Amino acid sequence: MLSRSSENGPYSPAFHAAAELIGRRWNAAIIYSLFNGLIRFSDLKGAIPGLSARMLSERLKNLEANGLVTRIVIPDTPVCIEYHLTEKALALRDVLIAINTWAQKWHDGA
Amino acid sequence: MLSRSSENGPYSPAFHAAAELIGRRWNAAIIYSLFNGLIRFSDLKGAIPGLSARMLSERLKNLEANGLVTRIVIPDTPVCIEYHLTEKALALRDVLIAINTWAQKWHDGA
Repeated sequence: MLSRSSENGPYSPAFHAAAELIGRRWNAAIIYSLFNGLIRFSDLKGAIPGLSARMLSERLKNLEANGLVTRIVIPDTPVCIEYHLTEKALALRDVLIAINTWAQKWHDGA
Repeated sequence: MLSRSSENGPYSPAFHAAAELIGRRWNAAIIYSLFNGLIRFSDLKGAIPGLSARMLSERLKNLEANGLVTRIVIPDTPVCIEYHLTEKALALRDVLIAINTWAQKWHDGA
């Protein structure tokens, strides 16, 4: 019933794992903000109300461990650290757009 | 950068809430299975490995409270209970398809 094409099969563990990875606390917000060009820690923190520095740090490590974010250290003075989406994360664009479209129509944001 | 059209703005609390609602433990798996036509408790439980009856019951109540699922009692003998997706949940079709497509390509399901 869900299928739009044969590539969408029944419920699978991969689907389950993907949904929970995207939906894990703050993950979608951070990925979304990285998509929007915010690549520094302080910019990310400023863009997401309610997200503490400690939690952002922990989430970025988790996203890195899951292959969604690459941490790049630029040897400047002072040292500059940037966070970039991997190819795997960039492939989430359609997911984020679909969630955002749905949220704007159906979710009150409470 | 994320925008495909003007309807997709910057990160919003509604996006955040939507992503976490969809990603909350088991929610996507249950909604996906309901999309696939499984409308009875036992069928849902059977379709989702690792999901206990207690947790499924709790999640269905949560989805009902969030306006995604309607619980219908059919006065048969024995009484039959069905779970149906609301219009709000049916609108998640594109989100689920996008997650599933991404999962099949990028996630190992671990």
